Amino acid sequence: MADRFLRACRREPVDCTPVWFMRQAGRYLPEYQEVRAGHSILEVCKTPDLAVEVTLQPIRRFSVDAAIIFADILLPLEPMGLSLEFAAGEGPVIANPVRSAADVTALKPVRPEADLGFVLESISQARAALAGEVPLVGFAGAPFTLASYAIEGGGSRSYIRTKQLMYRDPEAWHDLVGRLADAVAGFLVAQVAAGAQAVQLFDSWVGALSPDDYAEYAHPYTQRIFAALADSGVPRIHFGTGASTLLPLMANAGCDVIGLDWRIPLDDGWAAAGHDIAVQGNLDPVVLFAPEHEIERRVLDVVKRADGRPGHIFNLGHGILPETPPEAVGFVADLVHRATRRAG
Amino acid sequence: MADRFLRACRREPVDCTPVWFMRQAGRYLPEYQEVRAGHSILEVCKTPDLAVEVTLQPIRRFSVDAAIIFADILLPLEPMGLSLEFAAGEGPVIANPVRSAADVTALKPVRPEADLGFVLESISQARAALAGEVPLVGFAGAPFTLASYAIEGGGSRSYIRTKQLMYRDPEAWHDLVGRLADAVAGFLVAQVAAGAQAVQLFDSWVGALSPDDYAEYAHPYTQRIFAALADSGVPRIHFGTGASTLLPLMANAGCDVIGLDWRIPLDDGWAAAGHDIAVQGNLDPVVLFAPEHEIERRVLDVVKRADGRPGHIFNLGHGILPETPPEAVGFVADLVHRATRRAG
Repeated sequence: MADRFLRACRREPVDCTPVWFMRQAGRYLPEYQEVRAGHSILEVCKTPDLAVEVTLQPIRRFSVDAAIIFADILLPLEPMGLSLEFAAGEGPVIANPVRSAADVTALKPVRPEADLGFVLESISQARAALAGEVPLVGFAGAPFTLASYAIEGGGSRSYIRTKQLMYRDPEAWHDLVGRLADAVAGFLVAQVAAGAQAVQLFDSWVGALSPDDYAEYAHPYTQRIFAALADSGVPRIHFGTGASTLLPLMANAGCDVIGLDWRIPLDDGWAAAGHDIAVQGNLDPVVLFAPEHEIERRVLDVVKRADGRPGHIFNLGHGILPETPPEAVGFVADLVHRATRRAG
Repeated sequence: MADRFLRACRREPVDCTPVWFMRQAGRYLPEYQEVRAGHSILEVCKTPDLAVEVTLQPIRRFSVDAAIIFADILLPLEPMGLSLEFAAGEGPVIANPVRSAADVTALKPVRPEADLGFVLESISQARAALAGEVPLVGFAGAPFTLASYAIEGGGSRSYIRTKQLMYRDPEAWHDLVGRLADAVAGFLVAQVAAGAQAVQLFDSWVGALSPDDYAEYAHPYTQRIFAALADSGVPRIHFGTGASTLLPLMANAGCDVIGLDWRIPLDDGWAAAGHDIAVQGNLDPVVLFAPEHEIERRVLDVVKRADGRPGHIFNLGHGILPETPPEAVGFVADLVHRATRRAG
């Protein structure tokens, strides 16, 4: 059923629980590795033919209920003036990170069509290529997570520089995340115009914040983004990791679906977020490395915790890890459908 | 008041809230760096004169209410047969990690006096040198966290190999954590015999587990350790990070004090753990990089959430970071005492 995923986002009844996987277009697939053998991540992102190809790869292989456009949350940082590279095995590196109020002021606004037109073109082409088989999800990074990369210059463990800017120069911080919110809001609106049928906002590292810091330094900017999408008509998914104590706040940021990681049982997480929104998750990605009987036990546990309530989208609690056996992904997709099939 | 810390561990009234800092003996202190200039971490651990010196350094500088012996949670892995090194800036590296049931079976039991006598000697000397000024805390790593290092061969982000052993060979996993529990239990009992007046069990990375996995694969082994200490008469502190959803389970593992990180407000965390145990925490370590007025606001918030209830020990939500300005540590220690001083 082609609209299973979108119906679940709206908490409408479905024939069986929809399933997709964060990072389903990625390094664990040999056909993705083949594309990447000749091209960097940024080249794939910036070449619609390639981006569409890797977007479609998991759709060809697995019975997933949504495609997610191949892109990277850090792409908007480049037109803002930051130099973005992906070092082999090292993750993203920004050579000229934001460290001061002056660095923030120097950032340029993002013009989605002019600056990130390649993503919009990829969305448009992927949407056409999918031909209604499954809906296409667009996405972006949330202001806190983007700011953490912009300030740290890459991944981080303790977010010292990020929080230093918050605590020492709150004005510069609010200026920075305000600019990021504007850039992301415009980018996501443009993604919907280009054909994205749902959007997911990744605040992957927001779990580094206390609830009070989240409320003060991150939440208003995420709200601004979701508000800009209110009239778009597409479901808005909000996802973070290690964010169990932030769920009530994150759920009221203006999203239609809250993404959970595995640190909170799905029923508890859904209750914390409120049953007036849908829920996405939340199998530990490492479970895909387990034997099938163990995968099955854990998938069925997640399904059971959803309790047949409309509005559950099955997913992992974080992205698929590069070392994941592809056959486990297919096994889970089929199992979720089989285990949740409604009579009728 | 020399017994302020121990009284708070037992939830007895105190003249003001006791305070100490995880990793208070560490790299942020220039006098520690001086000792380390000539000696590796392992050399300092294994030379009681040096270990005692760095244990005492923060006591000389700050008005903290407890000393914690300088050591490392990974020390028991060496006599078990694992080769332990600290690569510069890289953290611990284990060249022969545990990857199979056979690797587990080959592990040797730890004889605390013969294998880790240098820690016991350091405790005995530090206790004498402290001369009752403040109590001395001993510590060890919890089985899950130790197993994660033993299996991954160092730090990890996704704990793939650790969880793989759990999921693929649960028998080997239970054998491994059982051996680690026995080693740690014996080591902590010996630390108390040598003079430790409280013990803290660090399950630093247990927040990587779902509550169900924690209950099955970690909790019983932590319980075994605390049970072995039940007759010791010393307070048992239990600490993890990112473990908000595990708190009810962690709190009932047999500890007297639960350590909280900053991801959960202290009042919520204490309520989740239960008011029948004491609580330690929970300032974000990065707050020590903030201006004093901002540090003060956040310290007072933690104190306010403790609500004057006996049984709060002020601490950070994780260890002091190496880049921390030492004066911020002194400022917080004094502020906690001043802000919580009881009339009388």
